[in-house]
Amino acid sequence: MLPSDRKWFTEVNAEAGSAESWSIEAHLAREVTDFQTIDVYRTSHWGNLMVIDGFVMLTTRDNFLYHEMMTHPALFSHPEPKRVLIIGGGDCGTLREVLAHDSVARCTQVEIDEQVTRLSEKYFPELCERNGDPRAELLFDDGLAHVKNLEPGSMDVIIVDSTDPIGPAEGLFGPEFVVDCYRALADGGMFLQQSESPLLHGKLIAGIRDNMDKAGFSTIRTLGFPQPCYPSGWWSVTQARKGGEIEPVSAERFAASGITTRYFNPGVHVGALATQLP
Amino acid sequence: MLPSDRKWFTEVNAEAGSAESWSIEAHLAREVTDFQTIDVYRTSHWGNLMVIDGFVMLTTRDNFLYHEMMTHPALFSHPEPKRVLIIGGGDCGTLREVLAHDSVARCTQVEIDEQVTRLSEKYFPELCERNGDPRAELLFDDGLAHVKNLEPGSMDVIIVDSTDPIGPAEGLFGPEFVVDCYRALADGGMFLQQSESPLLHGKLIAGIRDNMDKAGFSTIRTLGFPQPCYPSGWWSVTQARKGGEIEPVSAERFAASGITTRYFNPGVHVGALATQLP
Repeated sequence: MLPSDRKWFTEVNAEAGSAESWSIEAHLAREVTDFQTIDVYRTSHWGNLMVIDGFVMLTTRDNFLYHEMMTHPALFSHPEPKRVLIIGGGDCGTLREVLAHDSVARCTQVEIDEQVTRLSEKYFPELCERNGDPRAELLFDDGLAHVKNLEPGSMDVIIVDSTDPIGPAEGLFGPEFVVDCYRALADGGMFLQQSESPLLHGKLIAGIRDNMDKAGFSTIRTLGFPQPCYPSGWWSVTQARKGGEIEPVSAERFAASGITTRYFNPGVHVGALATQLP
Repeated sequence: MLPSDRKWFTEVNAEAGSAESWSIEAHLAREVTDFQTIDVYRTSHWGNLMVIDGFVMLTTRDNFLYHEMMTHPALFSHPEPKRVLIIGGGDCGTLREVLAHDSVARCTQVEIDEQVTRLSEKYFPELCERNGDPRAELLFDDGLAHVKNLEPGSMDVIIVDSTDPIGPAEGLFGPEFVVDCYRALADGGMFLQQSESPLLHGKLIAGIRDNMDKAGFSTIRTLGFPQPCYPSGWWSVTQARKGGEIEPVSAERFAASGITTRYFNPGVHVGALATQLP
């Protein structure tokens, strides 16, 4: 039983037979958009909490884990990432981490729902602090169509920072989109997609890897990491390379980057790349 | 709100403003012992669930993460662990992993509450499959007193597999016990203690590390790993060595051991040793 002396937001994971709850102090916003319903709460211990269609997207307290692992494994395993594309990622935390890399000349974020970004600017301003960077391009458009229209070989890194594979994000987990991303990547390019929980979503991960394999990617790795606000607290990204291996960053390159992290580092990168699916 | 069409067991973490719930099919056992109240439930998706004084101890589905990380980092970073002591660990999952190491000549488990082991034998039999190993010694006694009476330098590895630092396990987080463990360890010996969540329990971890430092340990490392059934899903062990460094296991030694794991491996070991406390 949840104590009734405070309010709670609960996400129930019916397929996992589990639920997670956060103690809530205020309901700060609700936006019903053409795509989804977005809620923002103030929690007692986790800062602000964004929820889309009843599923937790992020909290102030623990999103650093997700955003560091959505970006640095791809950018640090590419020799010199210049042209980066983010599909989804409307809270802009992934954009912020990408732009921490000096080599990046252009980072385009294609989020279908502008309200995600507008709410993030207001309630997660620290994630949006690089939105005004001259290298940042924020588009509010359909990511599937955007990638289809890209010039072949025009991207070094494509990151798919999407919601779960239901609703507006469903096509981002389909084989056609992965083929389009492969075509848009230059040789040696990196594709990285959030891929749910290694413990709970083994079949989904297998499907993601299968799509990447069939699209022609030469190396495919699933990297695990802790993510408290998502079901099971154990999450993953799946990364694929268009030609070549995926190697962990060297201590020298990481130090020379000057990038400050709270989770990712060269040793953690080795560990994540060694993730075995249970 | 938790759906009322099924029963739930909920653990509320007041200090973290969060709660985790499991869907329950049956209440299999309750034992009120001299030390605590132990419940076992059958869940819908996580196998059996053991709860002590309202706090989740383990589930069938995800305990492999905890037990592998409570054992292999200590044993594989010791050149040849022969004499191993487990304080607590009544479910016997840690004992099972220790005895997977051929070098181990003797593993003594000192659990204060025999009923934990009796219930584990019944509801988590896979964890107890090495209890009959001739190298295993199961004692039901006070771990604090046991360590105090050990001959100096008589242990290669001491593992503290305890409940949270309240109730019967409180003394296991105190400085005097750590000094006693230091004395009981041989030169180069390894001490490893479960140390809660890197995200939620930074102060507790700092205290554990401080105790180890003051006891004289030469190297202290906190290793993070995912653990879905514990608060935040991100857990840690803190390991200390009596003289010498703590190095990750080589791929050669790990392969030669013949030990099968679902989470731990040489790369994961590197990653865990690189854990930074956020």
